[in-house]
Amino acid sequence: MTANEIIRKKRDGHPLTSDEMKFIINGYVEGTVPDYQVSSFFMATFFRGMNKEETAEFTRLMLHSGDIIDLSHIPGVKVDKHSTGGVGDKISLPLAPIVAACGVPVPMISGRGLGHTGGTLDKLESIPGFRTNLTIDEYKNVIAELGLVMIGQTKEIAPADKKMYALRDVTSTVECIPLIAGSIMSKKLAEGIDALVLDVKTGRGAFMQTHEQSVELAQALVGIGTSFGKETVGFITDMNQPLGNAIGNWNEVVESVECLRGRSVPDVMELTCVLGGAMVMLGKKAGSLAEGIERCKEAVKNGKAYVKFLELVKRQGGDISFLENVEKYPRSKYSETITAPASGFVTSIDSLELGFSGIMLGAGRTKVDDVIDPKAGILLKKKAGDAVKQGEPIAEIFTDNKEILAKTAQRVANAFSVGAAKPASSPLIISVVDKNGVTAFENYR
Amino acid sequence: MTANEIIRKKRDGHPLTSDEMKFIINGYVEGTVPDYQVSSFFMATFFRGMNKEETAEFTRLMLHSGDIIDLSHIPGVKVDKHSTGGVGDKISLPLAPIVAACGVPVPMISGRGLGHTGGTLDKLESIPGFRTNLTIDEYKNVIAELGLVMIGQTKEIAPADKKMYALRDVTSTVECIPLIAGSIMSKKLAEGIDALVLDVKTGRGAFMQTHEQSVELAQALVGIGTSFGKETVGFITDMNQPLGNAIGNWNEVVESVECLRGRSVPDVMELTCVLGGAMVMLGKKAGSLAEGIERCKEAVKNGKAYVKFLELVKRQGGDISFLENVEKYPRSKYSETITAPASGFVTSIDSLELGFSGIMLGAGRTKVDDVIDPKAGILLKKKAGDAVKQGEPIAEIFTDNKEILAKTAQRVANAFSVGAAKPASSPLIISVVDKNGVTAFENYR
Repeated sequence: MTANEIIRKKRDGHPLTSDEMKFIINGYVEGTVPDYQVSSFFMATFFRGMNKEETAEFTRLMLHSGDIIDLSHIPGVKVDKHSTGGVGDKISLPLAPIVAACGVPVPMISGRGLGHTGGTLDKLESIPGFRTNLTIDEYKNVIAELGLVMIGQTKEIAPADKKMYALRDVTSTVECIPLIAGSIMSKKLAEGIDALVLDVKTGRGAFMQTHEQSVELAQALVGIGTSFGKETVGFITDMNQPLGNAIGNWNEVVESVECLRGRSVPDVMELTCVLGGAMVMLGKKAGSLAEGIERCKEAVKNGKAYVKFLELVKRQGGDISFLENVEKYPRSKYSETITAPASGFVTSIDSLELGFSGIMLGAGRTKVDDVIDPKAGILLKKKAGDAVKQGEPIAEIFTDNKEILAKTAQRVANAFSVGAAKPASSPLIISVVDKNGVTAFENYR
Repeated sequence: MTANEIIRKKRDGHPLTSDEMKFIINGYVEGTVPDYQVSSFFMATFFRGMNKEETAEFTRLMLHSGDIIDLSHIPGVKVDKHSTGGVGDKISLPLAPIVAACGVPVPMISGRGLGHTGGTLDKLESIPGFRTNLTIDEYKNVIAELGLVMIGQTKEIAPADKKMYALRDVTSTVECIPLIAGSIMSKKLAEGIDALVLDVKTGRGAFMQTHEQSVELAQALVGIGTSFGKETVGFITDMNQPLGNAIGNWNEVVESVECLRGRSVPDVMELTCVLGGAMVMLGKKAGSLAEGIERCKEAVKNGKAYVKFLELVKRQGGDISFLENVEKYPRSKYSETITAPASGFVTSIDSLELGFSGIMLGAGRTKVDDVIDPKAGILLKKKAGDAVKQGEPIAEIFTDNKEILAKTAQRVANAFSVGAAKPASSPLIISVVDKNGVTAFENYR
């Protein structure tokens, strides 16, 4: 067996055996198969794909390249959520404490902002003192104590994925569903979970821009989860406009705290309660999705979810006084209000453009070693479907970088479309993928 | 511009600009674009192909990575031939002196055996003393003196091709028509030629197994030649059975000498005279292919071609006494005769199997640094269409390696099919590709 023969087999459309997958993946990790063969293999895979067995094997090899955390000593069905990434997507922040407050342990390992999308770690780290770099032992202690923990990737988890992702990133082989699915699932399966809920974004601000692609990715992810004996449910959700009103790390923490305190941010709470409801259902604390959603709403109403979040922040080193009094947080040096160019209705808000605008303001990175400004970001005053009057504020931007203020204000203004007619409302949660197949969300509930 | 963006553009099916091609190819040669990006680019090219302009640019960049030999001081239209490689394909040996004897200068730079096919250099080097590693200056002197020279690749010629071929060879990106065409043509265009005849093999013993693929390759080659202002004609020829009766380096020299001395080996002489006729036509020493073919036959008949070959061998250091008395050459320690399993007709001879059998006997390499045994090989006593009686010799094999004798005899026996009915004869020269398109050979003459 040679790497060259295996690449040829993939190139010519033949499925690979488990041993052949092992030869390439383990060989790369161990240094016996060089990067120039692996990049050629990935490009062949981009064109030829992987079948279910190959995708599961690819995931298994990456998973076993590192430690698999054992949480079996912790009672209950451990459930996590993963989102493929969006703009204004702070859902993990209210979701995790809500689900934990319902009695379902949530061991969550998150990522940083990628491309135009934000990352849960960057948001949590905007809370002064909050530590996301816990050791595996600390991680186990916190989940055991609180039923909740939120940390970042550690070097023990799926090191093969890290090495391969870095190679894919510079060889234009990122956008390949089995490779994406294996990368996501190898990290999730290492967390010690029993079940998983997926939020697969679709539309303008998502990595998958069509419903069809998003379903394909969800099916790959659910297929892997199922083959590892973990119940996995994927929701395809809309990312044509940002989630909620806040974009930027601290802004999103504030909005999350407001939601946990009971203020209604409709789309954020709808998505939080549906994903959370599914987690509570998979965690055996509800008999149906509808009952799970009710449990989540109760956990907000009775204040338990907010208390759980404060406990978590405190336990991981964060200063909760900033959450209890958000006005205490420093403010950006510069801000500018964007106003409606005409009267009518907001017909759309381009979330991709707002994602990139947020990065320009300082809320994200263009290079790996860029430092994030946690205060920087955007607050939306209007969302798609809202009526506006000419000159009325539609958004406000915040930054410490005076130079880019005017240019970014223009970009944010251009991201809004205003028309005479009220746009038809489109559903936030579109469809559900589980081991039985794809169902429209309205029929799934 | 980044290599990653260029790879993505090719991956997504968009044609590349000249600057983008330059960024990748020159960057690889200069060491600014790493091999793992180039292999991913090649695999994307395998799936997406290259258009005419990209293929020409790819060739141009490889050509200009080294020296382009200037033969403009030598009078006449310089014409070379290139074959894509076959089994028993010794055509260059009789062809080059025949064409030179007709007054057309032939500057020929050849390759070594590749895979199951033989190489002109290995054949020439089986003549004691023959030097193929002339310097560029020696090359120029020999062609000026004799109107003929036959050497191997030098390090000055298209070094980029050498580096890229080595990478393609280990990343399963060899079988890609624009990459093959660019590799061949960059080396041929560096020789100092004015026109080129191509022998594109098709069938079981060829790299291109279908007529369609062979035409596609011929069109790519002719397209490049034309775009560089060199008249180029490609012949698609049959490689379902070996050419002639001899396989193995010295065996093929002997058969070539016999042809030059006027013994009829029908398929070898037919192909030699057609390819040679085309070269004489392109070299302006004949007004038509038919006239060119006549000139070639005359050059054999009047002995001038054989004399030219002796001059060449002598001038490049070879001992012509072995050509004048082939019996003087050492013989293999072991030989075995293969006989017909039944009476009837030889219906086919598997040239791919005979190619591999030749390598086993010692006539080729399985690794780059294997040493070739020039005496080793196969002599066919019968060809497809010949009548045979049970027990009658159909082939004889020669080797110094006793261990593989019985096994190889079996393999050679299995390569012959014998049936009751005489098979329909199939043409040796199938079609012709030139700048006007594809024509069946029978209509081209």
